[in-house]
Amino acid sequence: MTEQEDTNTNTWGSTSWTRLSSLRQQSPLIQCITNLVSMDIMANTLLAAGASPAMVHSILEIPDFTPHTQAVVINVGTLTPDWLPAMKAAAGLANQLGKPWVLDPAAVGASGFRLKACLELIELKPTVVRGNGSEIIALSMASLGSTKGADSLHESSDAVEAAKSLAKSSGSIVAISGSVDFVTDGQRVVGAHNGVPMLQKITATGCAVTALIAAFVATDPTHAFEATASALSVFGLAGEIGMGLAKGPASLRMHLIDSLHGLDQETVLQRVKITSFS
Amino acid sequence: MTEQEDTNTNTWGSTSWTRLSSLRQQSPLIQCITNLVSMDIMANTLLAAGASPAMVHSILEIPDFTPHTQAVVINVGTLTPDWLPAMKAAAGLANQLGKPWVLDPAAVGASGFRLKACLELIELKPTVVRGNGSEIIALSMASLGSTKGADSLHESSDAVEAAKSLAKSSGSIVAISGSVDFVTDGQRVVGAHNGVPMLQKITATGCAVTALIAAFVATDPTHAFEATASALSVFGLAGEIGMGLAKGPASLRMHLIDSLHGLDQETVLQRVKITSFS
Amino acid sequence: MTEQEDTNTNTWGSTSWTRLSSLRQQSPLIQCITNLVSMDIMANTLLAAGASPAMVHSILEIPDFTPHTQAVVINVGTLTPDWLPAMKAAAGLANQLGKPWVLDPAAVGASGFRLKACLELIELKPTVVRGNGSEIIALSMASLGSTKGADSLHESSDAVEAAKSLAKSSGSIVAISGSVDFVTDGQRVVGAHNGVPMLQKITATGCAVTALIAAFVATDPTHAFEATASALSVFGLAGEIGMGLAKGPASLRMHLIDSLHGLDQETVLQRVKITSFS
Repeated sequence: MTEQEDTNTNTWGSTSWTRLSSLRQQSPLIQCITNLVSMDIMANTLLAAGASPAMVHSILEIPDFTPHTQAVVINVGTLTPDWLPAMKAAAGLANQLGKPWVLDPAAVGASGFRLKACLELIELKPTVVRGNGSEIIALSMASLGSTKGADSLHESSDAVEAAKSLAKSSGSIVAISGSVDFVTDGQRVVGAHNGVPMLQKITATGCAVTALIAAFVATDPTHAFEATASALSVFGLAGEIGMGLAKGPASLRMHLIDSLHGLDQETVLQRVKITSFS
Repeated sequence: MTEQEDTNTNTWGSTSWTRLSSLRQQSPLIQCITNLVSMDIMANTLLAAGASPAMVHSILEIPDFTPHTQAVVINVGTLTPDWLPAMKAAAGLANQLGKPWVLDPAAVGASGFRLKACLELIELKPTVVRGNGSEIIALSMASLGSTKGADSLHESSDAVEAAKSLAKSSGSIVAISGSVDFVTDGQRVVGAHNGVPMLQKITATGCAVTALIAAFVATDPTHAFEATASALSVFGLAGEIGMGLAKGPASLRMHLIDSLHGLDQETVLQRVKITSFS
Repeated sequence: MTEQEDTNTNTWGSTSWTRLSSLRQQSPLIQCITNLVSMDIMANTLLAAGASPAMVHSILEIPDFTPHTQAVVINVGTLTPDWLPAMKAAAGLANQLGKPWVLDPAAVGASGFRLKACLELIELKPTVVRGNGSEIIALSMASLGSTKGADSLHESSDAVEAAKSLAKSSGSIVAISGSVDFVTDGQRVVGAHNGVPMLQKITATGCAVTALIAAFVATDPTHAFEATASALSVFGLAGEIGMGLAKGPASLRMHLIDSLHGLDQETVLQRVKITSFS
């Protein structure tokens, strides 16, 4: 895998800013069926970015509610059997209605139950799948991986081939979080370089960026590849700015959200760094 | 609706301070059966104000626990069918024991299931109902509204007539959050003017203020109307002070809680702004 | 109970630093089956300290997942009947595999249901039990106490005899949080003096320190007594440092986590204060 000379960094900065501006203008309604740990930071990330989050996870509400949303996020981080039918119903309905939906296979290697659930969700054609390296590898191999909690055991670059394979078989955009975040549609591969290591010391930042991807994609569903890379870089950039003010993971969390809310055009154009790989 | 000349602003400042002081002194035990997103900020808001929060939601525990509480909060923000019986049991027991209880019909228009649940809870005679404009309108009309997630589509002033109607039919005090918060018992209407727009960019601040209302009412159950308006203004005032220190929604959240904890008599007397409407 | 002349404070500082260093180096995987209020602060506390948290609570996942963990935390703070079997399964498996597990009997006196559940969990031989004074007394007396929410009605020193009795009957290390935290194995009693009162104004700090105990014990399971006292002092010390920067409970929460992440050897050696009682 070779990083390419990049003559159009400005294109990606411009794409990212266009997506963020649209998000702030449209305030898309994002339904989140997510793990119990992530709800606060996910909702606050979406609000800070300009979206309208809705944590609606009862299967009874999906027929009434999901049709009004602009995108759906499904995250299996604290999966129990009673939540799975609602996840499938929401994903299925989103798929049927042509709405984007994003799968976060959090800690998919934790158990056979969780892996099976994720494979069933993949059948419902997520627009985007985002995980860390070990999650994407586990999912791609469809075998019981040995992911260590929700943390990554694999560098994201190692997982790129697994991601391409998963993207081809599923038809989804696949994103891998890591020191560089990679995004692939099975053919193209880009790397989003923004971010800081300390984000991994804050719980559920991965979940939060998955939700941000859904919000970005909601503003331009026909360019999910570009929207996904943009969301990853914008979140990472907010982390970089936050890191300049932080004294540790808890203050980074605060400054990250504040920075995401305050991001301006100049900063996005100058600092978003996304490159192509081949 | 006309805002009245207000010759007794000091009365409201004094009422608010009396309620807050009593709260700090009595530290009432507030049982919260609330949505999964709001638990952290709700508990921390209650603690910062001086109350003792208890997130106890198993139906098995209500007969033992609810009699020891000074007030109950029910919030349907992430309602599922398995939570509803406990909500009804706690509300029913509070009602039976003459304890105040407060209903937050969060996103009541999200589904027919949720609307029906809220209507059933209303039958159990909440002391106070607090929602945003679209929630109060949806509940008042008892028809499937089109609330957009948990956010408000309606200005709170538009919802005042709906609130008065709901207050009359239910016997509850009804509060509407918005740029001005309105409180009515069906006859009287007051507006609580404290607050800042950025509070809407923090998830579950509405849920948190509902819990604060319960704590204020717990200290003077026979004056629920005054306690409700006071709680809304005190929370908004903490937001105003927090906003002076904040750089975005996450730091506002922190400074809001800190400010609520530190509010002193002089600030409350000078800055609480509640006016009468007729 | 008499506090003893302490000629070896440096020993405890050194023990605490050794445990914290090991934790940062080993990054043990800690499975948390905990209450809904505490998940965010618990996960962030573990991450800041250097551990790898995993909120995995489905009974279906325990056979696959629990064997890969280094310790398990069970906290009954928002117990419902559907969560109890998974708690028992995880505790039983940890016990069977010789892994440490820690019980937090949060608000055990809230109901007969919760007390019974805690007594059943005690049968599964927790390595450590940590609660506040009233929780430990209620559990030790195995009678329906009158704990006030999750807050403590009893000074921790009053509960020491109850803790010794519980430690003897259960074989667990028992820790009591309070203005001084006490730890006993039924014979020895030490007091961990670090901490600040305002920690009680932040929800789930008790839950967070229970998880930290599990992480400390995971790094040296054969010295659970020493690891427990060390964890309590290290957490309290982070609170002391945080308090120097805080303006209220919400900023204390932030600075606490930041300080835990940044604690250095010199500070731990100089400021950890643990003394023996007899």
